[in-house]
Amino acid sequence: LPKTIEWVNGRVRMINQLLLPYKLEYIETDDPFRVAEAIKRMEIRGAPAIGVAAAFGMALAALKVQERSLKETLNVLERTAEMFKETRPTAVNLFWAVNRMMAVARSATSLEELVKSMISEAEKIALEDEKANRRIGELGSRLLSDGDTVVTICNAGSLATTYYGTATAPIYVAKEKRINVRVIAMETRPYLQGSRLTAFELKLAGIPVSVITDNQIGVIMEKEKVDIVFVGADRVVGDGHVINKIGTYPLALVAKEHGVPFYVAAPTSTIDLEHDIEQIVIERRPSSEAAELFGRRLCPEGVDYIYYAFDITPPRLVTGIITERGIAYPPYPKSLKELV
Amino acid sequence: LPKTIEWVNGRVRMINQLLLPYKLEYIETDDPFRVAEAIKRMEIRGAPAIGVAAAFGMALAALKVQERSLKETLNVLERTAEMFKETRPTAVNLFWAVNRMMAVARSATSLEELVKSMISEAEKIALEDEKANRRIGELGSRLLSDGDTVVTICNAGSLATTYYGTATAPIYVAKEKRINVRVIAMETRPYLQGSRLTAFELKLAGIPVSVITDNQIGVIMEKEKVDIVFVGADRVVGDGHVINKIGTYPLALVAKEHGVPFYVAAPTSTIDLEHDIEQIVIERRPSSEAAELFGRRLCPEGVDYIYYAFDITPPRLVTGIITERGIAYPPYPKSLKELV
Repeated sequence: LPKTIEWVNGRVRMINQLLLPYKLEYIETDDPFRVAEAIKRMEIRGAPAIGVAAAFGMALAALKVQERSLKETLNVLERTAEMFKETRPTAVNLFWAVNRMMAVARSATSLEELVKSMISEAEKIALEDEKANRRIGELGSRLLSDGDTVVTICNAGSLATTYYGTATAPIYVAKEKRINVRVIAMETRPYLQGSRLTAFELKLAGIPVSVITDNQIGVIMEKEKVDIVFVGADRVVGDGHVINKIGTYPLALVAKEHGVPFYVAAPTSTIDLEHDIEQIVIERRPSSEAAELFGRRLCPEGVDYIYYAFDITPPRLVTGIITERGIAYPPYPKSLKELV
Repeated sequence: LPKTIEWVNGRVRMINQLLLPYKLEYIETDDPFRVAEAIKRMEIRGAPAIGVAAAFGMALAALKVQERSLKETLNVLERTAEMFKETRPTAVNLFWAVNRMMAVARSATSLEELVKSMISEAEKIALEDEKANRRIGELGSRLLSDGDTVVTICNAGSLATTYYGTATAPIYVAKEKRINVRVIAMETRPYLQGSRLTAFELKLAGIPVSVITDNQIGVIMEKEKVDIVFVGADRVVGDGHVINKIGTYPLALVAKEHGVPFYVAAPTSTIDLEHDIEQIVIERRPSSEAAELFGRRLCPEGVDYIYYAFDITPPRLVTGIITERGIAYPPYPKSLKELV
C-alpha cells in the first residue's frame, strides 16, 4: 500500500482521494493554504489523516514565516491554527494536532528552533499515527478468526490515516498472521468512500472485498454470515458515544439486533473527554454534495438533499473501543478514562 | 399527476421510469413481450403497477392469438403467463394479476369472449388498483396532522401504481383535506427511486419534499422532527412479515428505536396468506446494477457489489398495515386474515 500523506523535503505529499479509484494522483505543495483547501474539499479525509495534514500544514506555515520575529511568527501561526480548525468542525484529531503544534511553537526560544521543532513534531505526529494503528491492528486481529466476514463503513482504512488505517488495521495484521477474512464494505453515500477507497485499498492488499449499498445492512445480516463489525470514529466522547460517518448508527443498531459484535477502532487522540455528547455539533454539508454525482443531478431541480455528514452511535450499541493502548469495554466512562 | 399505465385503443401506454426525473417519456406497445421486457428492465416498477402491466400484457397476448382455436389460445396464454411470472420473482401482485387473467381466460366459451373478457378484466384490475389506493389514502390520511413530517423509502408512489400510490396516497388525500405535510424521501440506492421518482411526483403535486441518502435514517430521527413512516410493500406474509425495497428493515428498526410509528400501505392483493416467510425468495439482481451509475463504475474493477433488492421487516417493528379494507394492527395473523 502507498503512504497516504508524507513530508518530503519541505513539502507535503498526499494522495488526492477524490480521484480514487480511477487515478492514483498526488497533491504536492509547500503552501499551508493548499493543505487547508485539501482538507475542506476532502481531497484528504479521515480523522487521523486530517490531523497529520493539519500538523504538516502548520509546519509549512512555520517554514513560510521564518524571516519575521518570533513573536510575529507566533501571531501568524495562531491565525493559521484557527484557519485549520475551521476546515472540518467534527474532527477532533484536527484540533488535537493543531494544538499540539502550537504548544511546540510557543515553547521555542528562537525562530530556527521553532521551525525545526515544528517540522519534527509534525513528523512525530505522523509516525505516532502509524504506530498507533499498527497496535490497534494487533489488538483487533485477536478478535478475528480464519474465514470471518467483517463489515465496515466509509474508509477508516490506510487512506484515512498515515498507514494501516484504524478499522482496517486488524484486517491487515490478521493477513500477516495468515488469518484470512472477507470484508463487506458499505459504499457510504454520498462520497462513496467505501466503494471508492476501502474496496480500492483492500483489493490492492489482496483481501477479498465486496461492496453493498448502504441500505443492505439489514439483509446481509440475514443472508450473508457476518461475524464482526469494525468502524472508525471521528470522535469518541468520554461516555462512549461515537461520532462517525453517517450510517454508523443504523449499522450498529442492526448489528445489535443480530448479535454481531460492533467494535470501534480509534486512536486515543480521537477520544474527547472534555465535551458532553450534547455539545457536539454534527456537521451539515451542502445539499449539492449529496444531490449530484459525476456532475449529474439525482433529484429534480428545486428539491434539496438533507446532508448530515455524521451520526451518533450510543454506547449501549458498542461492544468495544479498540485503541492503541488497549480495548475499552463498557462501562465506557471508566474504561476510556483509564486508557487516556 | 399523469397516469402511470393505461390501456389505450388496444395498446399499453406507460411512463418509462428509467428516464425520470429528466424526461417524461412513454412506452406504447401492442407487444406482450415488450411489456414483459419493461417489467424486467424496471422501466415500469412498483408491485401494483407491475401487476397492472402484466394484466394488460396478458390482454395484449389474447389480442395477438385470437385467430387460433380456444384450446390453442389457452395453451399459448399459459406460456405467456409463465413468462410474466418469471420477470420479477418477488412481486406477489404479478402472480395474483396473471392468475386472475388466466382464470377469466379459462372460463371463456368462445375466442371472441376470451379476448373481450380479458381486456375488460385487465381494465378492472387497473381501476381496482386506483380505487384501493384512494381508500388507503383516506384511511392513512387520518393518521396525519397538519405540519407533520413523513419519511418514506423507494417509490410506493403514484408511479408505482396506476394512480395515487400506496405509501403516498395518505399524503395526497391529506393535501386535498388541507392537511399539509412535509416528506423526507430516502434516495434508495441503487436505482434512486426515492430521489428520482418520489421527489419527482411529490414536487409535481406541490408537496414539500427533501431527499436523504439512505444512511441518514438514524441522524434524521435525532435532528429532524419525524412524526410517521409510510412504506409500501412488495409482499406481506400472513404473519405480518413485510417484504419491501432494500433498506425498509433498517428504517423500521430506527423508527422503533425512536418511537416513530411505522406504517405499511399495501392493497390486500399484496397480502400472501399462502406462504411462510421461510419460503420467500429474496431477489438478487446483477452486481453491475449497483456497481455502475450513469455508466461509471463506483468501485474498482474486480470488486463486486452484493445486491439484494429487498429485505424483510419483522412484524414486531410494524405499527399497522393500511389496506383498502381497513388498517390491520397486531397480532397480524388474526387481523390480516380477517381483512383478506
